[in-house]
Amino acid sequence: MSSSNSNLDMFFKPKTVAVVGVSSQTRKFGHVIFKNFMESNINAKIYPVNPKIDEILGYKCYKSILDIPEPLDLVIIAISRKAVLKVMEECAQKKVRGVIIIAGGFSEIGSDGKKLEDQILKIGSENNIRIIGPNVIGIYDPYYGVDTLFLPRYRLMRPKRGKISFISQSGAFGSALLDFAASQGVGISKYVSIGNAIDVDVIDVLEYLESDENTNCIMVYIEGLRTKKEKTNDFYNVIKRISLKKPIIILKGGLTEQGQKAAASHTGSISSQIDILKAVFKQTNVIQAEDALQLFDMARMLSSSHFPTGRRIAIITNAGGFGVLTTDQLVKQGFDLTTLSKETVEFLKSKMPSEVIISNPTDLIGDSDTERYKLALNKILEDKNVDIVILIILLSLSFVESDIIDVIHAARIKYKKPIVVCTIGGQFTQMMVKMMEENEIPTFPNPKRTVNAVKALIHYAEYCIGREEVCYPLDH
Amino acid sequence: MSSSNSNLDMFFKPKTVAVVGVSSQTRKFGHVIFKNFMESNINAKIYPVNPKIDEILGYKCYKSILDIPEPLDLVIIAISRKAVLKVMEECAQKKVRGVIIIAGGFSEIGSDGKKLEDQILKIGSENNIRIIGPNVIGIYDPYYGVDTLFLPRYRLMRPKRGKISFISQSGAFGSALLDFAASQGVGISKYVSIGNAIDVDVIDVLEYLESDENTNCIMVYIEGLRTKKEKTNDFYNVIKRISLKKPIIILKGGLTEQGQKAAASHTGSISSQIDILKAVFKQTNVIQAEDALQLFDMARMLSSSHFPTGRRIAIITNAGGFGVLTTDQLVKQGFDLTTLSKETVEFLKSKMPSEVIISNPTDLIGDSDTERYKLALNKILEDKNVDIVILIILLSLSFVESDIIDVIHAARIKYKKPIVVCTIGGQFTQMMVKMMEENEIPTFPNPKRTVNAVKALIHYAEYCIGREEVCYPLDH
Repeated sequence: MSSSNSNLDMFFKPKTVAVVGVSSQTRKFGHVIFKNFMESNINAKIYPVNPKIDEILGYKCYKSILDIPEPLDLVIIAISRKAVLKVMEECAQKKVRGVIIIAGGFSEIGSDGKKLEDQILKIGSENNIRIIGPNVIGIYDPYYGVDTLFLPRYRLMRPKRGKISFISQSGAFGSALLDFAASQGVGISKYVSIGNAIDVDVIDVLEYLESDENTNCIMVYIEGLRTKKEKTNDFYNVIKRISLKKPIIILKGGLTEQGQKAAASHTGSISSQIDILKAVFKQTNVIQAEDALQLFDMARMLSSSHFPTGRRIAIITNAGGFGVLTTDQLVKQGFDLTTLSKETVEFLKSKMPSEVIISNPTDLIGDSDTERYKLALNKILEDKNVDIVILIILLSLSFVESDIIDVIHAARIKYKKPIVVCTIGGQFTQMMVKMMEENEIPTFPNPKRTVNAVKALIHYAEYCIGREEVCYPLDH
Repeated sequence: MSSSNSNLDMFFKPKTVAVVGVSSQTRKFGHVIFKNFMESNINAKIYPVNPKIDEILGYKCYKSILDIPEPLDLVIIAISRKAVLKVMEECAQKKVRGVIIIAGGFSEIGSDGKKLEDQILKIGSENNIRIIGPNVIGIYDPYYGVDTLFLPRYRLMRPKRGKISFISQSGAFGSALLDFAASQGVGISKYVSIGNAIDVDVIDVLEYLESDENTNCIMVYIEGLRTKKEKTNDFYNVIKRISLKKPIIILKGGLTEQGQKAAASHTGSISSQIDILKAVFKQTNVIQAEDALQLFDMARMLSSSHFPTGRRIAIITNAGGFGVLTTDQLVKQGFDLTTLSKETVEFLKSKMPSEVIISNPTDLIGDSDTERYKLALNKILEDKNVDIVILIILLSLSFVESDIIDVIHAARIKYKKPIVVCTIGGQFTQMMVKMMEENEIPTFPNPKRTVNAVKALIHYAEYCIGREEVCYPLDH
């Protein structure tokens, strides 16, 4: 937990970067990674390395990192595992500060691979080189421009800048979620896939993110505690400390015995630590997600919402059915609907057509336009009986246009209360949802996911703001 | 339950259709609906009616339906409620067989509206006119071409032809799900929004769909039993009979007391019938969905999958993490993973790279291409220990291309065992998912939804095929 341990600037803010294994074959990992750096806005010098070629994509190609005429902060090793050791030795000689080793075929496939890992780690420790990997996707950081995702953008989209950081023990799962986030208009601060984690582990990255000003929420996919550091009390202490500053949402793979077995064969992690982890989750303020989409939902919610000062929820809808289903979900998950004040009800009744139902849910009915939403949303947010508004807007059958986004945006700023949108539909709706996400308005496709996210928000807010501590069955 | 009751051909297969209230204002419901008929491939004569104009969209416009020179099967009344009664009287005079009344403002807003409904129904009953509505979206049928959805296609997409029919008591919710289905490449047979259901109700439509050759699965959104017929034993008998022929998946809005109240204010339905409905669900083979997306997921699954002859599940993945999470979900929901036969394991081990894990889950690892999937999928489907395959394909970080769809398609035909795909990602993945759906390969974005759908399939198959009846906690 020394401060040097958590300084990972060589990975996230390198001034000089070499990519070893840049091929002229455009599908090879090294080629894609080098191109990522070229195309990013990175404020760093970048060097391609490949003994067999002289020039690539207009850059002079170096035969070895030893030939590069200045010190290197970061070396990305994108060659097959057999050749890694030699490059590590060159890194030691060159006094490189950090390396990312992409190749797989190490401890996850047996004792020979483990031996190789030990040799690599020994060179790293003795020469003060921090290592991410091996068997890793690496890093994506749209702020500074580090991008070691080795698939092209058409295949694996890159999210815009945002406030959510994401640590994943599974590279493929993490990348798929990143790709999905990008398609939904959700921004990311830092993505780190830590692979076999022979050096940099979940704790290191959490501590780095603790003070990262671009991160206000951290999602973690974890299968087990792998490193020595992770297996000590550090894990508990670090999570407990950080989760009071920034919400940490964890999805744990292998919570059942059979899932655990699958995790063991997949990553070599001994997951007999289910009970330890469960205790950590229980005793800290960590929010536990129960599946991939919930991890993503909770992170969107917690990274972009105001915190509620209570749990009194009002629903506004233009679709009665969705109002009913959302009410059902709220009740099922232990919430009551608030009662709007008389003043709110009387005011809105005086302004609205007689068919509109001013109650909770307030049903603006199918022919509602943006103006009707604006009136209801503002008045209901103003109501002292209301802490949170769930705004259901089914667009397929309505006259609501994109100006609804301005209305929500303005109301958030004015009332500083959480507003959560629930909507589902085809291409028009999906375009609007993306626009909402780009305006950091958390949006969910059905009542269940909406209520799950609201619940996580209330849970976290109540814990942090020092209000009455309530234990929700988040993992039911 | 007479056969005449369930013959709704005047709505679904009309030879002559009039739309009353076709306006020259392009956003008016009547205009949009008439245009839908013009643009559909309907094999019927269509007539616009509006006393104030002579021609619309190149069609002669009639002042009244009485001026139309031939008998009418179907009249769509798209005018305000005050004018409906007069048109109903004309329909009686004209001996029209069916009407759809779009306007709201009837029993759902009070006793005046209820009176109007009674008058309309009286005319209908006395003159043998079947009525859908009022307060209704109506019908969408891509086979014959009936389309009364009154929003344009850019806003509310129309699904292609498929095998799922959908009855909804909430028009807005139903239309949003229809729009969503279209965007996902999922086909629909018939969509019916029954609104206030003064005549045609859920039972009538169910009985019509029972013998509809284009429907093999029925989803229903229901808030309460509304009509006299629905409140009798008929509901139980009809559902029990039909659900043995075609799966019926029901989402019930208002399962909690507060949700029930919301439903009552929204539709005027007295939902004190929760207990009756719960008993109906329990005693029939109805599949109960717990939210909107689950309704959609289960319908996709049951309408397009082979039925399993057992519940032994194998997982194939290219992403260890998703394999672990899917295992967790299966175990949580009461399933065991099957054990692959020795022969399968040995055969695949001899053909695959050493890093691949042949087990359950079988992890083809990140660099798997379509060829590796083909080999594993076919061999595992051939295995006598396997009834169902969950195929996890994360595309963002892989070399799998669209030829995977051909592989799955061929394997389904060859082995006649259910294959369910689980994948999530950005635009590339979403395009592939749409292509899979267009090939009727059910696809889900996360382990939880995948397992939920598999569970519904197993439940239905076990009930129907006369195997050991097992009661699953589908509504937990």
